[in-house]
Amino acid sequence: MNLGKVVGTVVCSSKNDGISGARYLLIDKTNQRGEKKGDYLVALDLIGAGYNEMVLITEGSPSRETPLTVNKPFDALVVGIVDLIDENNKVIYRK
Amino acid sequence: MNLGKVVGTVVCSSKNDGISGARYLLIDKTNQRGEKKGDYLVALDLIGAGYNEMVLITEGSPSRETPLTVNKPFDALVVGIVDLIDENNKVIYRK
Amino acid sequence: MNLGKVVGTVVCSSKNDGISGARYLLIDKTNQRGEKKGDYLVALDLIGAGYNEMVLITEGSPSRETPLTVNKPFDALVVGIVDLIDENNKVIYRK
Amino acid sequence: MNLGKVVGTVVCSSKNDGISGARYLLIDKTNQRGEKKGDYLVALDLIGAGYNEMVLITEGSPSRETPLTVNKPFDALVVGIVDLIDENNKVIYRK
Amino acid sequence: MNLGKVVGTVVCSSKNDGISGARYLLIDKTNQRGEKKGDYLVALDLIGAGYNEMVLITEGSPSRETPLTVNKPFDALVVGIVDLIDENNKVIYRK
Repeated sequence: MNLGKVVGTVVCSSKNDGISGARYLLIDKTNQRGEKKGDYLVALDLIGAGYNEMVLITEGSPSRETPLTVNKPFDALVVGIVDLIDENNKVIYRK
Repeated sequence: MNLGKVVGTVVCSSKNDGISGARYLLIDKTNQRGEKKGDYLVALDLIGAGYNEMVLITEGSPSRETPLTVNKPFDALVVGIVDLIDENNKVIYRK
Repeated sequence: MNLGKVVGTVVCSSKNDGISGARYLLIDKTNQRGEKKGDYLVALDLIGAGYNEMVLITEGSPSRETPLTVNKPFDALVVGIVDLIDENNKVIYRK
Repeated sequence: MNLGKVVGTVVCSSKNDGISGARYLLIDKTNQRGEKKGDYLVALDLIGAGYNEMVLITEGSPSRETPLTVNKPFDALVVGIVDLIDENNKVIYRK
Repeated sequence: MNLGKVVGTVVCSSKNDGISGARYLLIDKTNQRGEKKGDYLVALDLIGAGYNEMVLITEGSPSRETPLTVNKPFDALVVGIVDLIDENNKVIYRK
């Protein structure tokens, strides 16, 4: 999984995603300290991640593996909101 | 998912895709403001995206997850036409 | 999907691919105008693409989605022979 | 599969992963001699890999192929703890 | 599929791969002429590829599509030992 921060939203009208109420977030990928990389992707959010929160993102086929996304054409999903990251036994990110 | 703009079409005769009437679009990937990157891919379109429209693209295995593409050998699909993108609470793209 | 030109063939003896008569093509990826990039891959061909023809290639899991490749360990497949590509309403490649 | 070393952990509260007790490790990818690349990812660990251990990581859809991760939205999994690597008939890494 | 040469082996003790007797090879990717790129990966081998042999490698989800690897967490598999490659009608690699 990769890390990123929520920086915005993407609104689509004509859709072919087979899901109603899908919320697409604009995510800027971050390193493990939460610093943005300027590397953007669009991910489906089903857990209500808020603006500027750091999230854990699953990409590719496993994105479909939640009750709501089974057999749906999504390739990026927010799977968790990050609370804390430690590296070399030091806390390097805290929500 | 990634963002891109429709810049053209690709026509194939001999095909092995198991679908009739498939429409292949030439897509130039864009950043979140709709600026083209010169990074091209070919995606299947089933929703009628038009020339120069900004679209949301799913890549890889999830591209098969629509009624028409189930068990078909596509690895890129247009899943939505983008209406609006906001970043840091400002609208940065509007159709 | 990506674009490429057929530049050669790859012959394997000991195989673990569960398919007889598989033909592996050496493909050089191209841009949308058919110019080679020097970025090679090996793809399975089931439609008889010829030397120097421009083809449409599906990569990853969807490569298995044809009657002959179902549940076979291929990650790249020729899905079509390209006849024509237009970009910005101009024909930029013709077979 | 790729190689990496365990450098930390990632803790999430709100989750959409359908698994309780999942342990997310912060992994720094390494070359075959165990030298870190500064290329980080977050992987699920079910075998108890410890701090600074070199591990083998599966990415993408196959990460779901263990009894605990079947049909779960993970795209990276620790599949083994590396004991020894040889290259050109010389041992280049030993745990 | 990609090309590579067998340069070593990787031995793991604690494993979560659900397969006994799996043999992990250290592979250095090569170009079509068999020249090493210094780009390493670890692949499962079930056909007995030997040291310095050039092999064809499938990556990602299709790696599971052999009788022994069905529903196992592997993302790279040796699918063939390369005998011969021709490019532009000249033999550029022979075992």
